[in-house]
Amino acid sequence: MSSLKTTITELKNLILQRHLQPGDAIPTESELCEILNVSRSSVREAVRTLTALDILDVRHGRGTFVGQMSLQPLVDALVFRAAMSATDDLKTLREIVEIRRSIDKNAGPELISSFKNTSNPELKKLVEKMVSYAATGRDISAFDQEFHNSLARRIDNTMQAQFIEAFWKIHSVINPLLEISTPDNLEVTAQAHGDILTALEKGDLEEYIAAVNKHYQPILDNLERTNRNLQEKL
Amino acid sequence: MSSLKTTITELKNLILQRHLQPGDAIPTESELCEILNVSRSSVREAVRTLTALDILDVRHGRGTFVGQMSLQPLVDALVFRAAMSATDDLKTLREIVEIRRSIDKNAGPELISSFKNTSNPELKKLVEKMVSYAATGRDISAFDQEFHNSLARRIDNTMQAQFIEAFWKIHSVINPLLEISTPDNLEVTAQAHGDILTALEKGDLEEYIAAVNKHYQPILDNLERTNRNLQEKL
Repeated sequence: MSSLKTTITELKNLILQRHLQPGDAIPTESELCEILNVSRSSVREAVRTLTALDILDVRHGRGTFVGQMSLQPLVDALVFRAAMSATDDLKTLREIVEIRRSIDKNAGPELISSFKNTSNPELKKLVEKMVSYAATGRDISAFDQEFHNSLARRIDNTMQAQFIEAFWKIHSVINPLLEISTPDNLEVTAQAHGDILTALEKGDLEEYIAAVNKHYQPILDNLERTNRNLQEKL
Repeated sequence: MSSLKTTITELKNLILQRHLQPGDAIPTESELCEILNVSRSSVREAVRTLTALDILDVRHGRGTFVGQMSLQPLVDALVFRAAMSATDDLKTLREIVEIRRSIDKNAGPELISSFKNTSNPELKKLVEKMVSYAATGRDISAFDQEFHNSLARRIDNTMQAQFIEAFWKIHSVINPLLEISTPDNLEVTAQAHGDILTALEKGDLEEYIAAVNKHYQPILDNLERTNRNLQEKL
């Protein structure tokens, strides 16, 4: 194992052994040099690597803390990967949309047990806004995100909820790389959110799955059309 | 935006603009100082951050290359998060197992269209080995990984396949944190792989889902038992 890897592992073990939690301060740079018996530059390199992974959080002038260990680094890396593939056959983008669709379908049973026979006026209002914005060709992404995050928050599996939010983010960052959605299919997407909500409140899994498919179809169609146009240009 | 963030963004843009691919060399440190108009220490810090995310790959004495952009950083981060939660209620571990189960179920239709009416003697042999090893309480993890990776390779969605492999890895690293599996439920797990294969070759989705549930049930039971024991000790 390289000395950097060893230092990183020892630093992680220190967090575990001391039962430090997100937000807790870790020892200072000089203390770490002594505890881990390595040079200042080794400590710095290890801290930087763990910061990139959101395992540590350096707040300048205030010290270094245990990070939130969010999925943000994954989001960043996947966004970049998607951008790299944007010039080829858009494969990564299609894969991301398909994964989003899978995650949403999967969440069906759990969402239904949370939503069945309830009424959700705030979500309904959100859908109405989306539909009216879409009808006039305005950007619906803020409402869209709020809708999907509201659903994610009803799921007891924190990590799965984070994946839903992470993939929404990845998708929204790479969306500008696509051809602009025509108002037509933007409206279909907006309405599909309403269908999703209705199916969940009714507790109808089959209808929910159909609504999820309807939600992603315009995006997948767009991707295929963009891909065809790209191929023709080659 | 902090200057580190700016340098990172510019370095990423350079990779995109030059259409560099994984394995391609990037400019040297001194060239980057000139191109990005920043100090050597800024370049170094940005390179280190991108290396932690597998976007760059520093090979000592040979230069810096575009990385494989694998999910390894995610695996590392989630393994660590799971280790941090191992002393509380094992929530992260349970979430990981549940996500694995979800991903596997999701892959059902696609796996069936690949496996239906085929015969897979290598996979069958793998299952037999697992069952006989499990019967004598020996470690089946190498066969287990090979089995799940073989299935993942049949999926056209590269990213989804990578998630299957990533979560297998996360799970296997944190498994030693659990109580040792009793030979009893190891055998159930081993046999469940056979059930999964049979269902896929028959093309029976319902049977496949049942086999996937059978596969993960002993692990979830173990987690619950471990959790109960931990609570009692408190």
